[in-house]
Amino acid sequence: MSKKDSLTKEQLRAVDAWWRAANYLSAGQLYLLDNPLLRQPLQPEHLKQHIVGHWGTCPGQNFIYTHLNRAIVKYDLDMIYLCGPGHGGNAVVAQDYLDGSYSEIYPNISQDVAGMKRLFRQFSFPGGIPCHTAPETPGSINEGGELGYSLAHAFGAVMDNPGLIAACVVGDGEAETGPLAAAWHSNKFLNPITDGAVLPILHLNGFKVSNPTIFARISHEELEMFFKGCGWEPRFVEGDEPQSMHQKMAAALDWAVREIQRIQEYARSSGDAARPRWPMIVLRTPKGWTGPKEVDGKIVEGSWRAHQAPIPVHDGRPGRLEQLEAWLRSYHPEELFDENGALIPSLQDFAPRGERRMGANPHANGGLLLRDLRIPDFREYAQEVPRPGAVETEDMAVLGGYVRDLMSRNLAGRNFRIFGPDETASNRLEQVFQASGRRWADEIDPETDSCLSHDGRVMDAALSEHLCQGWLEGYLLTGRHGFFNSYEAFIRIVDSMVSQHAKWLKVCRQLPWRQSIASLNYVLASNVWQQDHNGFTHQDPGFLDHVANKKADVVRLYLPPDANCLLSCFDHCIQSRNQINVMIASKLPRPQWLNMEEAIKHCTHGIGIWQWASNDQGHEPDAVLACCGDTPTLETLAAVTILRHHLPDLKIRVVNVVDLMKLQPHTEHPHGLTDEDYDALFTTDAPIIFAFHGYPTLVHELTYRRHNKKLHVRGYKEEGTITTPFDMRVRNDIDRFHLVMDTVKRLPQLGNSAAYLIQEMKDKLVEHRQYITTHGQDMPEVRDWKWNGGKGIY
Amino acid sequence: MSKKDSLTKEQLRAVDAWWRAANYLSAGQLYLLDNPLLRQPLQPEHLKQHIVGHWGTCPGQNFIYTHLNRAIVKYDLDMIYLCGPGHGGNAVVAQDYLDGSYSEIYPNISQDVAGMKRLFRQFSFPGGIPCHTAPETPGSINEGGELGYSLAHAFGAVMDNPGLIAACVVGDGEAETGPLAAAWHSNKFLNPITDGAVLPILHLNGFKVSNPTIFARISHEELEMFFKGCGWEPRFVEGDEPQSMHQKMAAALDWAVREIQRIQEYARSSGDAARPRWPMIVLRTPKGWTGPKEVDGKIVEGSWRAHQAPIPVHDGRPGRLEQLEAWLRSYHPEELFDENGALIPSLQDFAPRGERRMGANPHANGGLLLRDLRIPDFREYAQEVPRPGAVETEDMAVLGGYVRDLMSRNLAGRNFRIFGPDETASNRLEQVFQASGRRWADEIDPETDSCLSHDGRVMDAALSEHLCQGWLEGYLLTGRHGFFNSYEAFIRIVDSMVSQHAKWLKVCRQLPWRQSIASLNYVLASNVWQQDHNGFTHQDPGFLDHVANKKADVVRLYLPPDANCLLSCFDHCIQSRNQINVMIASKLPRPQWLNMEEAIKHCTHGIGIWQWASNDQGHEPDAVLACCGDTPTLETLAAVTILRHHLPDLKIRVVNVVDLMKLQPHTEHPHGLTDEDYDALFTTDAPIIFAFHGYPTLVHELTYRRHNKKLHVRGYKEEGTITTPFDMRVRNDIDRFHLVMDTVKRLPQLGNSAAYLIQEMKDKLVEHRQYITTHGQDMPEVRDWKWNGGKGIY
Repeated sequence: MSKKDSLTKEQLRAVDAWWRAANYLSAGQLYLLDNPLLRQPLQPEHLKQHIVGHWGTCPGQNFIYTHLNRAIVKYDLDMIYLCGPGHGGNAVVAQDYLDGSYSEIYPNISQDVAGMKRLFRQFSFPGGIPCHTAPETPGSINEGGELGYSLAHAFGAVMDNPGLIAACVVGDGEAETGPLAAAWHSNKFLNPITDGAVLPILHLNGFKVSNPTIFARISHEELEMFFKGCGWEPRFVEGDEPQSMHQKMAAALDWAVREIQRIQEYARSSGDAARPRWPMIVLRTPKGWTGPKEVDGKIVEGSWRAHQAPIPVHDGRPGRLEQLEAWLRSYHPEELFDENGALIPSLQDFAPRGERRMGANPHANGGLLLRDLRIPDFREYAQEVPRPGAVETEDMAVLGGYVRDLMSRNLAGRNFRIFGPDETASNRLEQVFQASGRRWADEIDPETDSCLSHDGRVMDAALSEHLCQGWLEGYLLTGRHGFFNSYEAFIRIVDSMVSQHAKWLKVCRQLPWRQSIASLNYVLASNVWQQDHNGFTHQDPGFLDHVANKKADVVRLYLPPDANCLLSCFDHCIQSRNQINVMIASKLPRPQWLNMEEAIKHCTHGIGIWQWASNDQGHEPDAVLACCGDTPTLETLAAVTILRHHLPDLKIRVVNVVDLMKLQPHTEHPHGLTDEDYDALFTTDAPIIFAFHGYPTLVHELTYRRHNKKLHVRGYKEEGTITTPFDMRVRNDIDRFHLVMDTVKRLPQLGNSAAYLIQEMKDKLVEHRQYITTHGQDMPEVRDWKWNGGKGIY
Repeated sequence: MSKKDSLTKEQLRAVDAWWRAANYLSAGQLYLLDNPLLRQPLQPEHLKQHIVGHWGTCPGQNFIYTHLNRAIVKYDLDMIYLCGPGHGGNAVVAQDYLDGSYSEIYPNISQDVAGMKRLFRQFSFPGGIPCHTAPETPGSINEGGELGYSLAHAFGAVMDNPGLIAACVVGDGEAETGPLAAAWHSNKFLNPITDGAVLPILHLNGFKVSNPTIFARISHEELEMFFKGCGWEPRFVEGDEPQSMHQKMAAALDWAVREIQRIQEYARSSGDAARPRWPMIVLRTPKGWTGPKEVDGKIVEGSWRAHQAPIPVHDGRPGRLEQLEAWLRSYHPEELFDENGALIPSLQDFAPRGERRMGANPHANGGLLLRDLRIPDFREYAQEVPRPGAVETEDMAVLGGYVRDLMSRNLAGRNFRIFGPDETASNRLEQVFQASGRRWADEIDPETDSCLSHDGRVMDAALSEHLCQGWLEGYLLTGRHGFFNSYEAFIRIVDSMVSQHAKWLKVCRQLPWRQSIASLNYVLASNVWQQDHNGFTHQDPGFLDHVANKKADVVRLYLPPDANCLLSCFDHCIQSRNQINVMIASKLPRPQWLNMEEAIKHCTHGIGIWQWASNDQGHEPDAVLACCGDTPTLETLAAVTILRHHLPDLKIRVVNVVDLMKLQPHTEHPHGLTDEDYDALFTTDAPIIFAFHGYPTLVHELTYRRHNKKLHVRGYKEEGTITTPFDMRVRNDIDRFHLVMDTVKRLPQLGNSAAYLIQEMKDKLVEHRQYITTHGQDMPEVRDWKWNGGKGIY
């Protein structure tokens, strides 16, 4: 031991032994059904028939995890572990098993020979556990599989957790993804006083599935400049000789922890929250380190061939079993586990204790730490609506008042944030800045900057939906609250992240030890129907379709038609748990329909007949005009006015849908209506003209089992450009004139009156076209149209 | 003029005059309906009623474009322009108008006073043009709107275009997105001998919508290290004084062009394709440069307030009109345009000529350059299928042979590449490496690396779906061919990019001057039903739903049930134009059903009765068993076998769907069946048990208008984990046993035989569950099951 070594001989022995134990367990999970400690010579019947899983990333991750354990004990750290590489679930599970956190949650996987056998068997085995870190993995808040989100999750986790360090292993494959590349800059949004620290460990094992990685092949100089350019101070740990690598890694980790402590102590004692240069580690080790060097004369350790199972034991070639046995025995399990199969006592002492174990850290089972929000009474923000349509307002601006006070009330609790890609003001939530600013850790220029603050709780100053989504997920998964405020069209950028979070929630609901977390809430404004400053590219209502395909227990879709309904929906969503709630909202001045009492009732039912707009009281309706979304509601009510003016004897029922999943059968979705209730609203045979916010097919998809087949849906059909608000509706046939035509065409009893009205509507459409191309805005009769109790016309 | 100046006085005057002209036209498009050259005092009636569009980015982009024009002329460059910032369509349109390329395409927008008036009027006006660069913009291959793809598009454009330079303006907002962050590393995949060059110009105007940008606020040192770390050599041009900025920009561009030429000359003369350090420019100018300095005492130029229209002319405050007029007149249009409203002759000379104008460069209207691929005869790769189900093979491996030869035949043409995130081998296309390697521009290690090559045409060595998609789009848009080979689940990562490309294609189809380009083709394997090495995270068939919502003219969805069908579909797609084709394929050994002749016929029809599997010949069927996708087809045929064994009198029809859009009415999709044809296949009242590859709702969505309402669809219902192949089907009720139960439950005439068979199927499911949890694999009767002409059972 040289003077400069970080580890004493004894520490070195312990670190290496723990690492060997973890590597042994990682390989064992891949290969073994039985004979877990190799107390008999290895036989074919001890092997799994299908070797499913990955080895390449495991030894490196075990190396990191082991050293983190040492640092946790040495510095008494509150630390969680994020496993970025797609695979390596067997490594993290091995670590959890070694420190006992696994058996505490899954007692059947006990710390003895029988338990180890079950540990091995269950891995990537029917009825067992996935090969990635997953919800099933204690200590995990980041799922392997789809890559790129670990670093954003880590940042979300440490926000408002000043005592927490998130150690985030970034795989060099993952590092090539866009979301991960963006996430290095998350350090521009971290406050060293009020937030914790992220310790990124870029793991250069050199290869992906079958290609080398970019970061492993660029020069040391480029690598170092890249991370310095991203605002990090990297330290390099490179090599393949275990003993010296242990010393280097220990030294690097000691440095990193002391740097974090130095940064935090300085900021917290001085009050200077200026962005520091946070430490990070670049670890370069061979892929499949300590595994078979060669198989069939081809390099395995240190190559892409180590990615999955390095020895193809079932390919029928001679010597496979022997090579596997030799490899497994190279870890000397007999030195590491006692007679009963438990870790030897001296090694048990190596692990952190209790909740300091990363597999048992409560931050990684965030529901344990979840505290309710302090919620203002949303009724106090009610928009006054003396009668339907009497006033106009911006729904999102009304919500802004509520959100401002929600923010205020939870400032002290430090468990609520808002996330969005620079769209808070554009989406009319700017009142929130009265309560808290925008988070920004770099220089702030009082001359030009608006509402920036080193401790702001609105995370809207990074133009990346991926970052917002990843941060919010990390924040929620560690037991806090928030919502994502975005443009409707561009939320599609995170489609796949939402899918993965939905899958995570679905699995967590089946794991009793995973405590409920706050729902993932979306408020999506600047929606498809309101493209003033933008055009066709900003029009995509398909997020509704995307989310609707997810597991019914998890997803809810709300389309409040006015401000009071939006308040009611938001209040419900922000207090819900374990769900993904999507709210589609309106930000432009729009007529208001329901007073608060009516709105609460309407939103509680989720769907209902608007009697004040209907004239079928006491009769079966001739037609049902249904609407969902603010713009479809407006056009439907305008169409009703025209119809009632021209055809006063026609019995029209207006049904408004707030909670879209009401349309699905109750057997498919917990919110779904029974057939009886559905029929009571929609009848079984009156024509339904349904004006829908999104793609019409979604309504058909939700209602195909319903009795009433006379359903005609209008919605967005990918027609749009920069044009007037009303023209957007005309281009997609969802305007009042088309709705009138749709209705009367379905009522053969009308005879000539239908033909007359259809012609009048066609004339109106021609007039509209001429007007907008001349004046660049909608004709006054449309612009100034107001609901007048079904009277009046246009 | 100092000795070191790049521009002579005269050049400086020309550059500045052109820039002023472009800025004037950019502002004019925002504000003016009339009086385009301010020949009368500005009056309210000259203004647009709605000021819609953006100013902030325009002067900076005009500055860049103007200087690029100078460089094009000086060095006779073949250059295209990519406008990364979301907005600024008015700047690019202004440039196109100035150099005449706009009027050539749109003669109505003539280069005179009347044309200028129309130019101004049409911008962001109903019936006019979008406020971003868009398909309507000559010279554009990148749409503003959704941000982040410009740099990947630029790289795609220069691949195999060794004489081309793509000047790519990256906005500092856009630079914060994940896809853009990943794209800086595209330089690791560029060959200086056979590819062209990308010249990124990071435009730091400091602000997004209402926040500052990260790159504008980090230190110069960090900024420089970041780009050097990404492998670029940045040169900085910073300031706000036009005259000195012109000199700096000219010098920087001269340097960059000479660097590109030096790099290319060295590589091309020496044959050394090692990755060079390519030049790039960082341009820091005030947002809204040359616009109003202040409005109402608040800073506008150089702040986020310059983002949209800097002067709110319609807010009723006094002096607005005067301030606008003063600003517009500051560009001195009277010096720039002649009496007729044409650019003065001395300035006309400043522009490049003919196709050297960036608005007229044929690379930006790629269909002009598109050459057909040399296509092998796919019939020669036929899998022999002596009778249905007689052989097993990996469909993707069969395709691999065809793709290898497709690659070989087009090597000389250099107009075909394959794109994918390191999944070529995993998806079984590795035969292609016999024809061409994987592209890699960094060091190659012959000991460990597999198939890497500096000139490889398989772009699969970057683990980023965003990069693959962006590169491929850029490659296609400039008139070449390719396809994206990916895992089915993770293609969702680029959902939003696909939407934007679909929108682009939809608009291009309406522009006669935009020539057809090759289709965007997806081959998606490792699909939802085949998760051996992965689990729940890798299961998402929703890309089909996503694409199905796009404009019918543009999208096609294919689910070939076997290798010969896959060959036939692929051959069709790779030769098609202006479409988005999705092929869902199988990579694991699967029974083969159709010989090549049958496959061609089946794929040509897109849907058909499989007579060899049906026994309803000469009768109306009692039930229709429909299937779509390889796994549903397999299970359906197994179910048919069970049904025919137990209920030999039952008349069963098997319908297989390859072309999913056949299910939609022909009025909705060009491939849709007429009702008559649909009814002939599916009957109007026999129960249909439809086993579908994806989410069942998609089939309902496509068929809701059809007569036969007795449609029961099985598909993926978000149930999955690491388990056996058959168990995945069982978990989602799409296995043979469930399909048998589904069928007989719908046939009340069966009476007791149904009850008996249902019980037997339930017993089988219990047996299955027990077997897999004991053995870790599927029971032999399932594993070894073979189609035997409808005879045999299990």
